[in-house]
Parts: sequence; structure tokens; C-alpha cells
Amino acid sequence: MSSPAERRGSWVADHLAEMVSPAVRALAETPRFPLFPPDAVPFGGGLPDPDTLPHAGLAEASVRVLRDEYRMALQYGGIPGYSKLRDWVVKWTQRDEELPLTADNVALQSGSAHGLHNVCEAFLGPGDVALVEAPTYPGALRTIRSRMAEIVSIPTDGGGIVTPALEEAITEREAGGRRPKLLYTIPQFHNPAGTTMLRKRREELLEICRRHHVLIVEDDAYGDLRFGGDPVPSLLTLSRGDGVLRLGTFSKIIAAGLRAGWTIGPRDLIDTLNRTRFDNGGSPFVQRIIAAYIDSGALEPHVEVMCRVYGEKCAAMLAALDRHCAPYASWTRPDGGFFIWLTLREGIDVRDVARFAAQEKVAFFPGPMFFANGDGSCHLRLAFSFVALDLIEEGVRRLARALARAAGEP
Amino acid sequence: MSSPAERRGSWVADHLAEMVSPAVRALAETPRFPLFPPDAVPFGGGLPDPDTLPHAGLAEASVRVLRDEYRMALQYGGIPGYSKLRDWVVKWTQRDEELPLTADNVALQSGSAHGLHNVCEAFLGPGDVALVEAPTYPGALRTIRSRMAEIVSIPTDGGGIVTPALEEAITEREAGGRRPKLLYTIPQFHNPAGTTMLRKRREELLEICRRHHVLIVEDDAYGDLRFGGDPVPSLLTLSRGDGVLRLGTFSKIIAAGLRAGWTIGPRDLIDTLNRTRFDNGGSPFVQRIIAAYIDSGALEPHVEVMCRVYGEKCAAMLAALDRHCAPYASWTRPDGGFFIWLTLREGIDVRDVARFAAQEKVAFFPGPMFFANGDGSCHLRLAFSFVALDLIEEGVRRLARALARAAGEP
Repeated sequence: MSSPAERRGSWVADHLAEMVSPAVRALAETPRFPLFPPDAVPFGGGLPDPDTLPHAGLAEASVRVLRDEYRMALQYGGIPGYSKLRDWVVKWTQRDEELPLTADNVALQSGSAHGLHNVCEAFLGPGDVALVEAPTYPGALRTIRSRMAEIVSIPTDGGGIVTPALEEAITEREAGGRRPKLLYTIPQFHNPAGTTMLRKRREELLEICRRHHVLIVEDDAYGDLRFGGDPVPSLLTLSRGDGVLRLGTFSKIIAAGLRAGWTIGPRDLIDTLNRTRFDNGGSPFVQRIIAAYIDSGALEPHVEVMCRVYGEKCAAMLAALDRHCAPYASWTRPDGGFFIWLTLREGIDVRDVARFAAQEKVAFFPGPMFFANGDGSCHLRLAFSFVALDLIEEGVRRLARALARAAGEP
Repeated sequence: MSSPAERRGSWVADHLAEMVSPAVRALAETPRFPLFPPDAVPFGGGLPDPDTLPHAGLAEASVRVLRDEYRMALQYGGIPGYSKLRDWVVKWTQRDEELPLTADNVALQSGSAHGLHNVCEAFLGPGDVALVEAPTYPGALRTIRSRMAEIVSIPTDGGGIVTPALEEAITEREAGGRRPKLLYTIPQFHNPAGTTMLRKRREELLEICRRHHVLIVEDDAYGDLRFGGDPVPSLLTLSRGDGVLRLGTFSKIIAAGLRAGWTIGPRDLIDTLNRTRFDNGGSPFVQRIIAAYIDSGALEPHVEVMCRVYGEKCAAMLAALDRHCAPYASWTRPDGGFFIWLTLREGIDVRDVARFAAQEKVAFFPGPMFFANGDGSCHLRLAFSFVALDLIEEGVRRLARALARAAGEP
């Protein structure tokens, strides 16, 4: 069915280019992931720590659900998702943020990437303008592109999005007759930058977006993984819920393999998300196992462990970078999340670093993956989340060798 | 966040209509589900039998996976899905159909509705023409509409799609300069019609679609649930794989609550589906539990039980219909699946039947849900899958009373 001989005379193989949707054609510009050898030190993908996955607690929860609730867990569960888990999302969101929320303000999706897809399907169409940070999460770029929307990148610095640049970009588009519809932002423990948006910036951003009627999509995938600094109220909280949809996920606080996340925000918008689902809802089996796991009281202590583990790994990586990489780059010092973002010294190109790093056997994600327009050749992202703590020093040594070679040192 | 007082002054609430995407606006025409009282006899939704859900086997599989494979099961699993489960899909497909398939011909999705969404996102865009059967699965109508594609309905009869009408519709559109891109069909145990497409029709359909370069999407959600008649080769088999994507699901043979299904077909098309995913892949946790359950040898005997259970329920419903409803309607006699399709006697309108059925406390799905253009007022669908066997007689009695009242009998 796929060998050249068999495909000869296949109309599908001969006409694929004209068969695919404009969405697929719009994706073609997405930069490819780099190829590092499989035995490279894994600073690449943003995968959760594998040694602390709560498998025993999830096994207990699975057994309990399949004994006590299997008629509900194994049947279709409806589009919004299991109400008890949506109740929990409300409580979790309200831990330190007083907001008048109910389960109707929550939609469960298959992870926050799926949540973003749901949001984009509901609110973006061909020719719409979407604003993103530069840099930003590559999955968001792909998802927005699939809606045939135009992406406008807003510069950021160590304090988050540069708000005058945001207003300027909006005004410029509006003058051209095209009102930006949506801003995708990661204010907390940014992917890839590792930064936290300042409170003042958040308030300015909200004011600008409210005035220009730009929907804010606040991706909070990493917000619960704080190991330093002081909390800043979320955009959802500061907005009192007007014009903000916040994406959350169980991927980072329990396990990515469950594929479960949520969107929380104004009810009208959540209702719209639910109307824009075509998958007959998420898995009630998975949602009920998560609820049972949480119900056992295991989540809070587990999140504490996670914060400690990621804090230790981050500190180890920062110390190693200080020791080995200072001549070649500067970097962010995150208070949480999975990532450190490097800015390379002038004259070092990340494509060279990637080539040498593949030889030195250390993996990372090159900067251009995180920019809509191919910028970012002086940046790279390191993930400290997945790698074993005792491999970090060796991985950074290898990176330093790759950086030195890319800088032309002998 | 959602009370009128709080929403006053909310720009989101005031501007929702202009915020939503054209996809959401295109969905507005979808007919609403009828409201039957919760204690109605449930002939409505196509839910699997709740008494035979294999919860014990799945609990064993869950424990095994979370003990032996948790590092893979709880981590991101990649877009195409767990390779061992894709291998199984190939073997399952090849049981009685010799096709040169490998795991690369299979993509795992979160149920076959999600599979169809994936297909539509990959191959349909604004203004494209999609062909469907009349009647057809309402979820397919919603999903196609969300791509802003035009739906053209092809008539069917007891032997499936009427092939001369198919060719005529294609030719007509082509003459208007618009080539239909895709045909969505349910040849086996049709939802809602309960019919099986004749082999001759399948061959004609394939020949027409090949000649006109129309991609065939063969929804086989019910194909494994045969309790009568003789097997007919699938469109995928008859095509030798050229130009056909077949959707399958674990919802009907294991449990809908898992949300797992697959698409199988030519590798180029499967690769395109994988490139058109924005959810970071399905759940490896769920996929591995399914694989472990299958590995235990439990699936084949379970499917045999399912076929017997659905066969008994179908026979009971047909016998009750013969006893009570013959004056008011005729109906299909399915060889498998979940559904019986009624054609009402002239002069009886399904809207009246629904009104009286709500009073008599028996639920069904009215015909117009299954037509793109609101036709179908002389039809209704009965699902025998979910209702308890010993309630079927009483449910059909109630339906007969509703039919009699809709026919104007005292």
C-alpha cells in the first residue's frame, strides 16, 4: 500500500498536493525539529521528570474507578467533561485567587495543546490576526497557522511582553482595517523563555486588550511549578474574568500521558468552546481516574515534590552554565517551569551550535523553532525537566564544547 | 463571571457574535437534540450496552500497565500513537481481508469522531464540496460544516448509496466548476439506517470515486458487531487501499469512555493526518491499557458476547415492532450495529411522534437530525444497544401509542 510499485497508478499518491486542505498547506512553513542522536543528553523536549510519575497512586485510582464508577467511566461522558473534576479545577484556581467561578466556567480537553486548538477553532478563521509573543510555544504557532490566521509577533524581554509594542502592533493592524482578534501569551514560567511577566505589564496588557477587544488566551501550563520568587496574580484574576481564557493541564502536575487539561474563563466563551468540539468529548475514564487520584489527597504533596525536583534540576543547570558557558552566552534564571533560554554571544549562530551539539551528544531546541518568522538564530532553549539530575553537569559541559566550536575556538 | 450583573460592561458578552470563528457560525444550523424526560425508555443515543462493559479486564490491564510500562504510559506518546496497538489494528483489519498494511498505515485518534475531525481538517477547506449519504451520522454533518465545506447529500436505499445518483451529483458539481473532494459513507450497519451496502454498490462507488478523484472516508464504527447476514468486503479492501481511509473505534467493541479509535489507509494520507494534529497525540495511558487488555486474550470472546447481546436486543425490538407498530411504519432489519430506522406511514410527522413520545416516556432520535437539509420528517431512529433487554417490549408499546396519537387515532 505504500511501496513505489504499489503506488504506481494510485490517484491518491499522484494528487496528494491538491487534495490536502489549506490548513495543511499553511503548516508547511513550520520549522522541523533538529535531529540529535538518541543517546544525546536530553535537554530538548519539555517532558516531565520520569522518576516521580505517580504510577502507584494512579493504579489505585484506576482500580477504584473501574470498580465503583465503571458504568460512567466507560460510557460517553459528554462534551464539557466530568463535573466533579471541573469543580476541582474551580477550587484549584481559587486557591489564592478569589473569582466567582463554577464548573460551568470550565471545559475539559485532552491537554492544554488540545485546549488551544479548541480555542483557535472557536475564535479564529481565515485572514484573522492573532498576536503571539516572540519567542513563543511552537505548538501555538502551528495551531494558529492551521486556522489560516495571520500571526503577528510581539517582542518580549525579561519582564514579559513589551506592552507599548503590543499596542503599536494592534493600532497598526487596525489602521490597516484588520483588528487583531486574539493574543496568545504565557505569562508564568514562559516556554521557552523561562520568564514571568511583571504585574505592571499584566495590567497594561489587560487594559490594552480590553480597549481593543482582543481576546486573551493565557497559557498556564507551568504555573503550578514554582520553586522561587513570589506569586503574581494571573491575567484571569486581574481581568475579573472578562476577556481571558486560561489554559491549564494535568500533564505537568500529574502525567502528560493522561492527555487531560482544561480551559477556564467567562461562561459565554466556555459554552462556545463546548459547541466547537467534534470528538464526542474527552475520556471520562481518564477524567475520573484523575479525580479519584486527587480525591485521595495525593496531589498537593506530589506537586510539592515536583517543585522541589524541578527547583533542584534548575539550580544544577544554572550552576553548570555559570561554570562552563559564561564566555558564550547569557541566560534567564526562571522561578519555575521547565526551561532556561540562552542568548548567544554575537557571532555564534545556533545552527552551528546544533551541528556541533549533535556530535557532542547533547540535545536542545534551537531558537528559530519559537519564532513565527524564523528569527531566533542567537537563541536556544534548554529543558531541565526530563534529564536525570546527575547528567546535567555532563550535558552542560558538552554544550559548552559545542558553543566553543561554534565560536570558532580550536 | 456569568451573572447578568457581572456581565454588564463585559466586552466579551457584548461582542461574542463577532468574536466567534466562521466555523462556529457554520454550526448554527445543526438541529438540536430532542428533549425527552430522563426516565424515558432509552432508544435515543447510540450508547453501548452498559451491563457488559469489561471493567474487570480493564482494571487488570490498568494495573499491569501502571506497574510495568508506566514510564511510557504516563509520558507523551507521540502523534501516530502506540506502535503495538497500531500493529494490532493491522492484524484485526487483516483477519479476513488480505491487505499489504503495516503500523505506518494506522493513526490512532481519540475515537472515530475525532478521527473524522482529523480527516476533515486535513482534507477539507472553505468552499470544498463533501458528499454524504442521506441519512447520515449527525456528527459527520457538524464536523464537515465546521470546515466551511458545502454538503451534498446522496440518496440511499436498503442496499446503500444509490450509485447513479452519486455519479450524477459529482458530474453536476464538476460542471459547475467544483469538484467534490470527499465522500463520507457508512457501508456497514449504517447509522442511522441499519443497512449494509451491497457488494455491487461498493464496487460501483469505488469505480466512480476513483474516476472522479473523490477521497472515500469509510466509517466502520459498527462493522465488528455482526449478528446476522454474510460479510461483505470493506471499501478499503475492495479498493486495495487506493483512495480510501477507514475509521475504526474501540468505543463499540471495548468501551466508549476510553475515547480511542483509529484511521487506516494509504500511508501518504495517514502521514497527512499525523501532520494535522494539534493535541500532542492521543493518550498512551489509554492506548497501552487497550493493548494490554487485548494481549490478555479477552477481546475476541468479548466481541462474541457483544454480538450475541446486540443480536438478542435487535431481535426483541424487531419482534415488538412487528407486534405493535406495523400499522404506522415500516423499518429496516439490520445484520449488526445498534440501530433500526423507521419510515412512518404517510400522514404521520415525526415532530408529532416526538411530542407524544415525550409524554409516553420513550426516547428516540427524529429523522431530521440525520439529514443535511432538514429532510427526514417521516423517519426516526431507534437504538437497541443501550436499553435493558427486558424494557424493549414496554418501550415499543409506548412508541406505538405515540405513533397512534400522531396518526390522529383516539
